Amino acid sequence: MIDDVIAKDSPEVVAEEVARAMWPRDHASQLLGLRILTIRPGYSRLLMTVRPDMVNGHHICHGGLIFTLADSAFAYACNSYNKNTVASACHIDFLAPAREGDILEAEAVEQSLSGRTGVYDVTIRTRTGKVVALFRGKSYRINGEVIAGLQHADEHR
Amino acid sequence: MIDDVIAKDSPEVVAEEVARAMWPRDHASQLLGLRILTIRPGYSRLLMTVRPDMVNGHHICHGGLIFTLADSAFAYACNSYNKNTVASACHIDFLAPAREGDILEAEAVEQSLSGRTGVYDVTIRTRTGKVVALFRGKSYRINGEVIAGLQHADEHR
Amino acid sequence: MIDDVIAKDSPEVVAEEVARAMWPRDHASQLLGLRILTIRPGYSRLLMTVRPDMVNGHHICHGGLIFTLADSAFAYACNSYNKNTVASACHIDFLAPAREGDILEAEAVEQSLSGRTGVYDVTIRTRTGKVVALFRGKSYRINGEVIAGLQHADEHR
Amino acid sequence: MIDDVIAKDSPEVVAEEVARAMWPRDHASQLLGLRILTIRPGYSRLLMTVRPDMVNGHHICHGGLIFTLADSAFAYACNSYNKNTVASACHIDFLAPAREGDILEAEAVEQSLSGRTGVYDVTIRTRTGKVVALFRGKSYRINGEVIAGLQHADEHR
Repeated sequence: MIDDVIAKDSPEVVAEEVARAMWPRDHASQLLGLRILTIRPGYSRLLMTVRPDMVNGHHICHGGLIFTLADSAFAYACNSYNKNTVASACHIDFLAPAREGDILEAEAVEQSLSGRTGVYDVTIRTRTGKVVALFRGKSYRINGEVIAGLQHADEHR
Repeated sequence: MIDDVIAKDSPEVVAEEVARAMWPRDHASQLLGLRILTIRPGYSRLLMTVRPDMVNGHHICHGGLIFTLADSAFAYACNSYNKNTVASACHIDFLAPAREGDILEAEAVEQSLSGRTGVYDVTIRTRTGKVVALFRGKSYRINGEVIAGLQHADEHR
Repeated sequence: MIDDVIAKDSPEVVAEEVARAMWPRDHASQLLGLRILTIRPGYSRLLMTVRPDMVNGHHICHGGLIFTLADSAFAYACNSYNKNTVASACHIDFLAPAREGDILEAEAVEQSLSGRTGVYDVTIRTRTGKVVALFRGKSYRINGEVIAGLQHADEHR
Repeated sequence: MIDDVIAKDSPEVVAEEVARAMWPRDHASQLLGLRILTIRPGYSRLLMTVRPDMVNGHHICHGGLIFTLADSAFAYACNSYNKNTVASACHIDFLAPAREGDILEAEAVEQSLSGRTGVYDVTIRTRTGKVVALFRGKSYRINGEVIAGLQHADEHR
């Protein structure tokens, strides 16, 4: 069967396992109704639908929640190697407003990873391809693994 | 009575009136349970208590929600002159984690305002004074007023 | 002859003409010995050799001069449409040191351009491909053209 | 004499000694004619006069050189404890142009220092007090001291 054929510690499998382990503990992403579309090593795509309780008086999505979507995409991308990794700094440029009912997609791409430090770019687009915001996050790897011992599981069989 | 003595278009009164007008429409800030402590021209202080639904698996507040608190404080400070003003770009440095139950205070201070563009610094601290994050936001004034005609109300009496 | 065949107001020709007009006035880029490799609409590549007078005591290039190289590449990219455009804000992440004698290449790519505002990413690499810094600049178009009347030159013939 | 009265390892004396040791090796700051006005622990003030070779065609100082002034002020402030410290990321907002002949002052103030990481704000002003740019730099302490053994010199007497 496929489970015996694909190595459990292939980077792609590890990235997906890490996301599965992070998700149930990630209450904030659930509060905003985020959904994960794709996880790969150093990469993620997440969705958020702009709900009525996410807007301000102009029916425009609060910038902080657009940031939160980007920050979550960043977190799933930079933790995908199963090394505990946190955000040290982030920058966001707001280019166009998002409106109630818009479905926003965040795509996180690794630009650099060297030692404990990485840089990830996240683009937030509407379904029609309009760029709503550009986010850049700097990650810092701390001690520990998201799933302890995952990559060495085979050794224990 | 005091309402007859303090000019209705004094900057301090305008700043408070604007916040009162913005708040009921600001569903996102209500979603996170934010509270406004102080509003003055170019200045605000807001509170957020880190709830169980705001944390990730490490019981640490999601960085996006810390950003959202800062972004709201920024919004109340930069709209305090009753000119519609939006965020064009923001930067945040995360310095220390915030934990479930922590009460976070965001203090927004205007650093520069010239033409349509302003720069505001927001410091996020715990109640014990630990700095959790430093935020810097760039504002851009668009057309229109938060409360149409407020500063010229006297003329219409 | 080719000058009669290629339209003088094709975007590619305009971008190169603008760079030729900017360069002799750009004393700062000359002070640092920058060289332009490529100019296209919304795009540029520039070179800088790290000279002995550009380093600090560790024989490492001053970060400000790496930034200046990136900022120049940004300027040639965002002015390439012959609309006067300035930097409103820039962010740089320093990833690896550059040493005396290193030849640094800055590649500026347009990420977004809408209304008067654009976002440009500049990557600084050594000749061996090591990424030294990642720069993101926000541009703002002001009034006027770099070369007055260039794109409408044909109309006046 | 005063040299016997003031402890050689008082923070103020250390900060000044470190600046004296850094300066002759800091060729880039000399290239731009920078001058140090004040050095204290976590604080510095530097000057730069905008020379003809620092401007572009609009007689406006190249933004990269304004950044370099800020970055140098940041470097003297964050190295003032005699721990080798480098910039990991910087952000600058350009608020007003600086012109040929302007004397710019950069004032660097420590906002946060915890573990190996610090945040420093640098304000660039003209002599008339106009704010030209706001800079925020994140520092990272690496191994080693600027002046090896300085703070423990007394122990060896």
